[in-house]
Amino acid sequence: MTDQMTRITLARRPDGLPVPEDFAFETQPLPKPGAGEVLVEVTWLSLDPYMRGRMNAVASYAPYVELGEVMVGQGVGRVLASGDDGFAPGDVVTGMTGWASHALLPAGDLRKLDGDLPESTALGVLGMPGFTAWAGLRAYGRPKSGETLVVAAATGPVGSMVGQLAKAAGLRTVAIAGGAEKCALAVDKFGFDASIDHKAHEDASSLRKALAEVAPDGVDIYWENVGGKVLEAVVPLMNVAGRIPVCGTIAWYSATPEGPNTLPMVWRSILTKRLSVNGLIIFDHWDDYPTFLNEVTPMVAGDKIAYEEDVTDGLDNMPQAFIDMLQGGMTGKTLIRL
Amino acid sequence: MTDQMTRITLARRPDGLPVPEDFAFETQPLPKPGAGEVLVEVTWLSLDPYMRGRMNAVASYAPYVELGEVMVGQGVGRVLASGDDGFAPGDVVTGMTGWASHALLPAGDLRKLDGDLPESTALGVLGMPGFTAWAGLRAYGRPKSGETLVVAAATGPVGSMVGQLAKAAGLRTVAIAGGAEKCALAVDKFGFDASIDHKAHEDASSLRKALAEVAPDGVDIYWENVGGKVLEAVVPLMNVAGRIPVCGTIAWYSATPEGPNTLPMVWRSILTKRLSVNGLIIFDHWDDYPTFLNEVTPMVAGDKIAYEEDVTDGLDNMPQAFIDMLQGGMTGKTLIRL
Repeated sequence: MTDQMTRITLARRPDGLPVPEDFAFETQPLPKPGAGEVLVEVTWLSLDPYMRGRMNAVASYAPYVELGEVMVGQGVGRVLASGDDGFAPGDVVTGMTGWASHALLPAGDLRKLDGDLPESTALGVLGMPGFTAWAGLRAYGRPKSGETLVVAAATGPVGSMVGQLAKAAGLRTVAIAGGAEKCALAVDKFGFDASIDHKAHEDASSLRKALAEVAPDGVDIYWENVGGKVLEAVVPLMNVAGRIPVCGTIAWYSATPEGPNTLPMVWRSILTKRLSVNGLIIFDHWDDYPTFLNEVTPMVAGDKIAYEEDVTDGLDNMPQAFIDMLQGGMTGKTLIRL
Repeated sequence: MTDQMTRITLARRPDGLPVPEDFAFETQPLPKPGAGEVLVEVTWLSLDPYMRGRMNAVASYAPYVELGEVMVGQGVGRVLASGDDGFAPGDVVTGMTGWASHALLPAGDLRKLDGDLPESTALGVLGMPGFTAWAGLRAYGRPKSGETLVVAAATGPVGSMVGQLAKAAGLRTVAIAGGAEKCALAVDKFGFDASIDHKAHEDASSLRKALAEVAPDGVDIYWENVGGKVLEAVVPLMNVAGRIPVCGTIAWYSATPEGPNTLPMVWRSILTKRLSVNGLIIFDHWDDYPTFLNEVTPMVAGDKIAYEEDVTDGLDNMPQAFIDMLQGGMTGKTLIRL
């Protein structure tokens, strides 16, 4: 057993898409847990789009990562040593470990995992992404049978859950994804009624035409994961009283957009179609997490909800996996296995 | 008594700000009401920003005006002749008369006015604009005592009602208006806590600085009447869980916006601040109109709610009054007196 821990810190603030040099690796001796603390050996780490936002020194819904600080993130691991009665060595736990091989955390910040599902599900389908889909759809999507839902990044861990929950609620579901492989996955594995490859459409107008064909009754819910071209394509297709839960704007994380100002078009559509647009940050909804777990865990265990994972081995490969994910190079939930 | 009626029709679709040549005057013999119809001699006509939208051949929440058709609008008048038992000559009524000296309307489309308030209030403070403010604030603004509200076009018939209702609910109210005179009116007559002259600020950034000074606790409700520079100034000042009822985008009715794409900034703020943005079209809320009248009529009669009217005499001057209004040249509710 090693007596060292490795952590990945923010070395530099990226301009647009991050590069490997924006990250640094540091090694230090394993700490010993004090009273109420738990030392965890990480086995799985989550990579999520929100992390890109935290690399900017911009006030947001959560503090940004300081230079030299460990990159933020959730992990799963095994307790190595515990200074708290609630945890014992060998317990499988999850918490905000950061991008690291080990983490020393207050016992209150850890949750024990039990059940028969793979540990990694705590980071994806039953973790923050799955819960985000469930809570946002309930609070802001308000799906009604017979309606049409469109979601981009549809094979990602949020989008695929949104699509499956909406389908189960009786909606027509349309996936937007990048590339033929993901489009096939959306339909074959996640049960979307149709899928559209955004890479096959150079601009919003072309994408809109394709969307209009597979959403002949218009769009009642647009689940916003990406912003950019997809947003501009979908908005004119929205039906009166449509809903747009805004969960992410990944198309705009890493680029300064060019082209005309599309705010007037979007704003005027919100007015004339009486759209309801709501920002969704999952931290506001944690109180409902137990309800989600009670409801969705059996669906996953019973294969009623499918999920896909894209696993990269080794902490060394984590920065590049993150960069790949931001460019749409991953399929399903992006995970690092240690 | 004349036996002719004059109507103003849409002669040409404007490009940007309308010009007088976009309108035409036509005269025709006064019609006789058939069974169930009522002939009204118009005394007051309403001018409202929404009419600009109806001049474009663009599908929207209501049909647009066809070329050669009478311009849409609400009026007040006296019944000249009636083919319906519910109305008698001399009755004071309101309805969608269009821009015209007379209108022949189905009895079911008219509402009789009674009470002691001036007839013109049926078009402003107790008409669509006042009701829009009341219904939108209730449905989408959800004001809470101690919060801060910002409204642009604050001396207009919607903005002034929004400000007064919010003030009565215990909010800090900030007016944005064009020119020193309107800014003084906002504070002196409508009770806003502060007012800012948007004409004194060349860009959104300068306007934002001024706003931040008079809204030191941030903005909880931004009532959207205008879009454009004001929207871009306010959005970064919004507090978490803020609300934006979108009631109008008059800054964008008559211009193709230049400059950078500000959609990403707005969209990302919606996400990170968990804003709730709702399009407001008053037609969705008509069921609540009697409740509004019951509640607000006594407030107006008892001078608890102030209102301002900007009256132009004569149908001949209506197109120019409309153009002036779109450019911010009117103060209060814009009315034509016949």
